[in-house]
Amino acid sequence: MIIVMNRGASDEAIDAVCERLQKEGFVIHLSKGVERTIIGAVGDKTRIDRSNLEALPGVEKIVPILQPFKLAGRDFRQEDTVIRIGDVEIGGDQVQIFAGPCAVESWEQLIESARAVKAAGAKILRGGAFKPRTSPYAFQGLEEKGLQLLAQAREETGLLITTEVMDPRSIEVIAHYSDILQVGARNMQNFFLLKELSRVNKPILLKRGLSSTIEEWLMAAEYLMAGGNHQVILCERGIRTFETYTRNTLDLSAIPIVKQMSHLPVIVDPSHGTGKWQLVRPMSKAALAAGADGIMIEVHPNPSEALCDGPQSLTPTNFEALMEELRTMTRMMGKTL
Amino acid sequence: MIIVMNRGASDEAIDAVCERLQKEGFVIHLSKGVERTIIGAVGDKTRIDRSNLEALPGVEKIVPILQPFKLAGRDFRQEDTVIRIGDVEIGGDQVQIFAGPCAVESWEQLIESARAVKAAGAKILRGGAFKPRTSPYAFQGLEEKGLQLLAQAREETGLLITTEVMDPRSIEVIAHYSDILQVGARNMQNFFLLKELSRVNKPILLKRGLSSTIEEWLMAAEYLMAGGNHQVILCERGIRTFETYTRNTLDLSAIPIVKQMSHLPVIVDPSHGTGKWQLVRPMSKAALAAGADGIMIEVHPNPSEALCDGPQSLTPTNFEALMEELRTMTRMMGKTL
Amino acid sequence: MIIVMNRGASDEAIDAVCERLQKEGFVIHLSKGVERTIIGAVGDKTRIDRSNLEALPGVEKIVPILQPFKLAGRDFRQEDTVIRIGDVEIGGDQVQIFAGPCAVESWEQLIESARAVKAAGAKILRGGAFKPRTSPYAFQGLEEKGLQLLAQAREETGLLITTEVMDPRSIEVIAHYSDILQVGARNMQNFFLLKELSRVNKPILLKRGLSSTIEEWLMAAEYLMAGGNHQVILCERGIRTFETYTRNTLDLSAIPIVKQMSHLPVIVDPSHGTGKWQLVRPMSKAALAAGADGIMIEVHPNPSEALCDGPQSLTPTNFEALMEELRTMTRMMGKTL
Amino acid sequence: MIIVMNRGASDEAIDAVCERLQKEGFVIHLSKGVERTIIGAVGDKTRIDRSNLEALPGVEKIVPILQPFKLAGRDFRQEDTVIRIGDVEIGGDQVQIFAGPCAVESWEQLIESARAVKAAGAKILRGGAFKPRTSPYAFQGLEEKGLQLLAQAREETGLLITTEVMDPRSIEVIAHYSDILQVGARNMQNFFLLKELSRVNKPILLKRGLSSTIEEWLMAAEYLMAGGNHQVILCERGIRTFETYTRNTLDLSAIPIVKQMSHLPVIVDPSHGTGKWQLVRPMSKAALAAGADGIMIEVHPNPSEALCDGPQSLTPTNFEALMEELRTMTRMMGKTL
Repeated sequence: MIIVMNRGASDEAIDAVCERLQKEGFVIHLSKGVERTIIGAVGDKTRIDRSNLEALPGVEKIVPILQPFKLAGRDFRQEDTVIRIGDVEIGGDQVQIFAGPCAVESWEQLIESARAVKAAGAKILRGGAFKPRTSPYAFQGLEEKGLQLLAQAREETGLLITTEVMDPRSIEVIAHYSDILQVGARNMQNFFLLKELSRVNKPILLKRGLSSTIEEWLMAAEYLMAGGNHQVILCERGIRTFETYTRNTLDLSAIPIVKQMSHLPVIVDPSHGTGKWQLVRPMSKAALAAGADGIMIEVHPNPSEALCDGPQSLTPTNFEALMEELRTMTRMMGKTL
Repeated sequence: MIIVMNRGASDEAIDAVCERLQKEGFVIHLSKGVERTIIGAVGDKTRIDRSNLEALPGVEKIVPILQPFKLAGRDFRQEDTVIRIGDVEIGGDQVQIFAGPCAVESWEQLIESARAVKAAGAKILRGGAFKPRTSPYAFQGLEEKGLQLLAQAREETGLLITTEVMDPRSIEVIAHYSDILQVGARNMQNFFLLKELSRVNKPILLKRGLSSTIEEWLMAAEYLMAGGNHQVILCERGIRTFETYTRNTLDLSAIPIVKQMSHLPVIVDPSHGTGKWQLVRPMSKAALAAGADGIMIEVHPNPSEALCDGPQSLTPTNFEALMEELRTMTRMMGKTL
Repeated sequence: MIIVMNRGASDEAIDAVCERLQKEGFVIHLSKGVERTIIGAVGDKTRIDRSNLEALPGVEKIVPILQPFKLAGRDFRQEDTVIRIGDVEIGGDQVQIFAGPCAVESWEQLIESARAVKAAGAKILRGGAFKPRTSPYAFQGLEEKGLQLLAQAREETGLLITTEVMDPRSIEVIAHYSDILQVGARNMQNFFLLKELSRVNKPILLKRGLSSTIEEWLMAAEYLMAGGNHQVILCERGIRTFETYTRNTLDLSAIPIVKQMSHLPVIVDPSHGTGKWQLVRPMSKAALAAGADGIMIEVHPNPSEALCDGPQSLTPTNFEALMEELRTMTRMMGKTL
Repeated sequence: MIIVMNRGASDEAIDAVCERLQKEGFVIHLSKGVERTIIGAVGDKTRIDRSNLEALPGVEKIVPILQPFKLAGRDFRQEDTVIRIGDVEIGGDQVQIFAGPCAVESWEQLIESARAVKAAGAKILRGGAFKPRTSPYAFQGLEEKGLQLLAQAREETGLLITTEVMDPRSIEVIAHYSDILQVGARNMQNFFLLKELSRVNKPILLKRGLSSTIEEWLMAAEYLMAGGNHQVILCERGIRTFETYTRNTLDLSAIPIVKQMSHLPVIVDPSHGTGKWQLVRPMSKAALAAGADGIMIEVHPNPSEALCDGPQSLTPTNFEALMEELRTMTRMMGKTL
């Protein structure tokens, strides 16, 4: 950590910063320039709050040198993390497609989606049972009934299932039914939820928050890992920018960056990332080309009757055609689908 | 609601949209132009999901005409909402200052802050008992012990108290102790939390999310109101933009806009909004000049020893000087402090 | 165009808006709802300024129905525009790679770059002669000398050349030497420059502005086309967002969107779009997978000696390896490189 | 400047960086930690391009310690710069109001605006003669004729005049007529224009770019000052964010920040900053409360007939009322209007 002092910071101020750091076991490198005094501090950063130092008199700014996360970082683990559920691998040489409707609406809708998803070659079924909607007047999900339908669809098709958890009180029931638990973009920094999930023995799919930096996203993964759950799958799903033509701006550069900074697998959700089904096809291919370990796609037997997110859902026919293209792309990337 | 059809949308597509709308009780105004067909639909918008229409063949876009919220809007209630707790009024002719430390750390720290806040003329003490920190390794709050200290400080000083709630499971205990319950920026769209809070009989201070539009903020207020809790205080605390010099970009234009669109009181938190104590003074004055009903300010007896947010906290001395200036500004705005 | 009136707008106000529209030849569709009166107006939008209507009493908002550009839009021209310079095609079945150094620094640096670019199979050499630098103390380019070196490199290698124009006074000299004239992100809305370039008989490569929406970008193309120059190549190069890990956020969704809204060719610049050479490889492949007509890549014989943008430049060896991968990707997309 | 090396950077890589720095006259402080080696470099930063260092093998990141601007910074000049034109002072104890129409449309419109502006107590008349419009089909200004009308209005009213310059070729004619030359937000980084303006002996009003950081804004001022023109007035006019309710997000925190970092005067343009005349009143007052040296306001005798920016223009009556409030606010800030 580097502490930059104000121009004209007094010797007392400089000494006070050094003493404080030394008290916490830091080794100090002092460098007095003509314009600024700079203090380098080597030690255990968790011993001191960066913002405390910033509040000391004469301090201009603190420059962190190391990333704030440890367990989620490449420094901690060099090889890629591969998450295995039965014979399904996430993060290795397989590319995984997570597909299904935004919300579980009925048995017919779900099983029709599940069969289409399975027939086209995907291995993981997605579907929301608890729905966080921006309007209190919109459909809020089938709740436990939805979880039971998902489990039934798994039994019939052999697909794994993944569904979102939003409330610490429903973790237990969701973990009972679902193979993978999803944390939505709006809950990426719901630290109470993350803490509870860190004690669950199931993989967590952690979506990037709408306005979260990559560093904050990896810090949220760190919360899960620090509590003991190392099975974290990251999911890029678009960030909020000034561009309003798409629902969000899908940040595909995040894929190679995460691969550099972290060992965790990372997938992409172009359905939420763009909000338009016509963009799902090109952006799915682009995501694989950028190195993603998987794609999450909304598929609905009848998008215009969907109780949520119809405009970004593919029909089974369009999904099948896309899978064909993704298979070619996967081969080109040296992986299997 | 206006439905704009694609150039070259077929008559069947147009008819299908009209039928769907009429089935839900909408009255249709059809306007066929040379380049586009436009369908105006008048009716109860909660009967149909906008995104379903967008998923129908031939639909280019949907243009909503009315705001999606009702209870939170000026159309629903013309006069300003005033929230009364004892003789303290929020949203009327009084300006309220909410002040205190970021986190409750100890009795000494809290009572010293509380006395300073009280002496300078503020009426509401803030202090976090449960702390959502971006790092799992940082101080996480004193929890119920913190609530008890807040209650004790209220007893000694007569100040009202406000503290943040982050987990639906702790609503009961927080509502037992606190006069006002705070929803933080990261939880503004935690709809499960909002639903529970909508049944609590205490005022809710609802902070604007980091990347939330004003409309989404008012929709979050609508969640609280739709469930029965009409005592909502809005709080602008900065949005995330490309500018990194400040922690967030404080959006003061939101004040007069909220006053136009809604009847709810709105306050400003320049401590979080800027992240730098030196900016708290000018931005507090600017917030009052823009029409805010109150200001929330972090005050700590010793900012450089604070367990969180030291750099944005005022010392008691600086706070007292600021209160002097705010008193003059309040008078100028024709209100009382 | 739809005009939404305020709740409670008077009949006089409604009549005034209708009269104003009718005076300009618009046909009016009036729809009086319980909550709002809505006026549909069909006619020649260039006859009236939208903002004038917004300034009329009682007007709440104006909702445009058609896109503001004409010549740049798919409605105007259904088939893709293909720009031909000799046997090089931009926008058709060929994928074009534009490669070379950020700035022309010397004959040795340029010709070494050019030969590497040529050997690896690219057909267009890029290189800046006039450099807009954020610091007045940084290298500002070789100016006309740089143009001469570019022309000489073209002679030796047979590559086409492209270079940036920033000042209307240098259009003539640049058009004399260069095959394609580039408008940088910072000048995308330099309308005086665009107007002059609209009269030049050379293709224009128009970079998207740092904070420009796709619609504004196409409006800038419209400026060029309205003045008579229809040879416009669009170039996505990243937008500014809150994420600071990359220099900009490369918005690859813009590729399929532009393809939908416009007939113009669109390429991607991952060097500026990410600012890091390690990201150029995955993002180039992703750009082609998303449907880009070409890629612009910075290549420098010795990036750490580069006078600008070293960190985002590929070495000739890395560039050659990337070209191999792009060739495979191009084939997969059914195009040729 | 601090150079942070990668974990595991080789000794050769570290030596290479040190040698490069020493060659340019930097003094080196080497600090080898367990996880990272850090190189502190003290010297003349203009001797080396930061990005070159970033391109050297083994370098993780460069952390600048000092601000990149010199002449524009407080370190260079402690006291506030006051710009004097006749008896009008910008940046001292006077608050200046710049007011007038967006565009000069006709003598009648201009003189009516000018008289209203003068009567209400403002001292500087604004009005565009050359208009950069996003649509090529919109009104583009009266050009030199507009300048003549402005000069005539000055003669009649005694107001100073300010108008925008967009093209280096029109600097001479604009400098001939106008008292202050304005650089618009879209041209803030038009470095060729800035270079030319740095040789003009008239004050320059430099608007902040739509997506410019405060540091980039001060670097643009540095361009003007490095060329010899130290009469720079900064103008905050809103930045582009995800919030679309306002045209831009007015960043009032920029005022106290600029006052801290620089000695230059800074004014605010709430008309462009919000795009809505109803917000001009509260945001003008807030700007003064935040410490602005002046306000720029669009005033038009008949906003709904304005050829540009009608919705954000005040009528003379509204302007007069606002001036009354600003006078009170100015007094409260200890200044004069």
